[in-house]
Amino acid sequence: MPNVIIDCLEGRTVEQKRQMVKRVTEAIVQTLDCSPEAVQIIIHEIRDDQLARGGVLRLDQKK
Amino acid sequence: MPNVIIDCLEGRTVEQKRQMVKRVTEAIVQTLDCSPEAVQIIIHEIRDDQLARGGVLRLDQKK
Amino acid sequence: MPNVIIDCLEGRTVEQKRQMVKRVTEAIVQTLDCSPEAVQIIIHEIRDDQLARGGVLRLDQKK
Amino acid sequence: MPNVIIDCLEGRTVEQKRQMVKRVTEAIVQTLDCSPEAVQIIIHEIRDDQLARGGVLRLDQKK
Amino acid sequence: MPNVIIDCLEGRTVEQKRQMVKRVTEAIVQTLDCSPEAVQIIIHEIRDDQLARGGVLRLDQKK
Amino acid sequence: MPNVIIDCLEGRTVEQKRQMVKRVTEAIVQTLDCSPEAVQIIIHEIRDDQLARGGVLRLDQKK
Repeated sequence: MPNVIIDCLEGRTVEQKRQMVKRVTEAIVQTLDCSPEAVQIIIHEIRDDQLARGGVLRLDQKK
Repeated sequence: MPNVIIDCLEGRTVEQKRQMVKRVTEAIVQTLDCSPEAVQIIIHEIRDDQLARGGVLRLDQKK
Repeated sequence: MPNVIIDCLEGRTVEQKRQMVKRVTEAIVQTLDCSPEAVQIIIHEIRDDQLARGGVLRLDQKK
Repeated sequence: MPNVIIDCLEGRTVEQKRQMVKRVTEAIVQTLDCSPEAVQIIIHEIRDDQLARGGVLRLDQKK
Repeated sequence: MPNVIIDCLEGRTVEQKRQMVKRVTEAIVQTLDCSPEAVQIIIHEIRDDQLARGGVLRLDQKK
Repeated sequence: MPNVIIDCLEGRTVEQKRQMVKRVTEAIVQTLDCSPEAVQIIIHEIRDDQLARGGVLRLDQKK
């Protein structure tokens, strides 16, 4: 705790995720006053037919 | 916001998901009085060995 | 299953939630081809200091 | 309800998951005083580049 | 990891929750072969106007 | 999308949350290459009798 679940579109590289978890953990440690070890981050990578906004799949928004 | 996360068994077609996000967004817009753009829907598709009810995997319930 | 978790701002009436779960369940049943009893909806009602977009709390977006 | 979402590293066998949902359901039924049928368990299996603690991906912690 | 999020109706005592997290952690440790310290459990306690099945709020199912 | 759900212990000030969402959004924008507007953050604030690690409630770990 804090526990962070990030849903994002698939396609990011491991290096992008590496930098992201490092920077997000720093941001939380420095603002919520907790230890780095306390911060757990779980990434759910989803496809563009599994995400919608305004009633339209992301898949269809790109056409 | 509203943010909707739907966990459902894999196997639905893109067309089923297309219709589902459209209809769910309409339902939320018309009852919670928000704009369509405000409604985000994330779909987690899971396998029948990743779902259980009554202590039994869905995989085993179908035998 | 399908399991639906809806995070939305607090302040809706019970009647709005009553209509919302009815309409969302209908939408899912008619598009994902499942029974009404299979659809579970969980509502997380959050405050405007617990939601942010673009790096700004909803609380501060309303000023 | 109770609804249980378990995020865990991929790689467990179906038999491990079979035993896990059985035992977790028993634990919840016997302590929260509900029926087995009321307990739904959803398993999200994630990779070691989708999990981080202390700002480091699990992938990099194993090196 | 494993990370467990349990949504359940409010009203359980602290003692029930104390026993539940103990027993669920034991169940996961003994079946998924991980350490007790690795298991994090988060409990979301919700009201009966925040839960629905079959399109009906739990609040209305009790009448 | 990206959608971020942060479960953390209650007790942080609005100012802490204000800084946290700002810094976490910057971290995600600069590493996952998306716009600030795309990043939604939802904060679930929980009590120490709703969180456990190693089978022990946080409430009991502080004694």
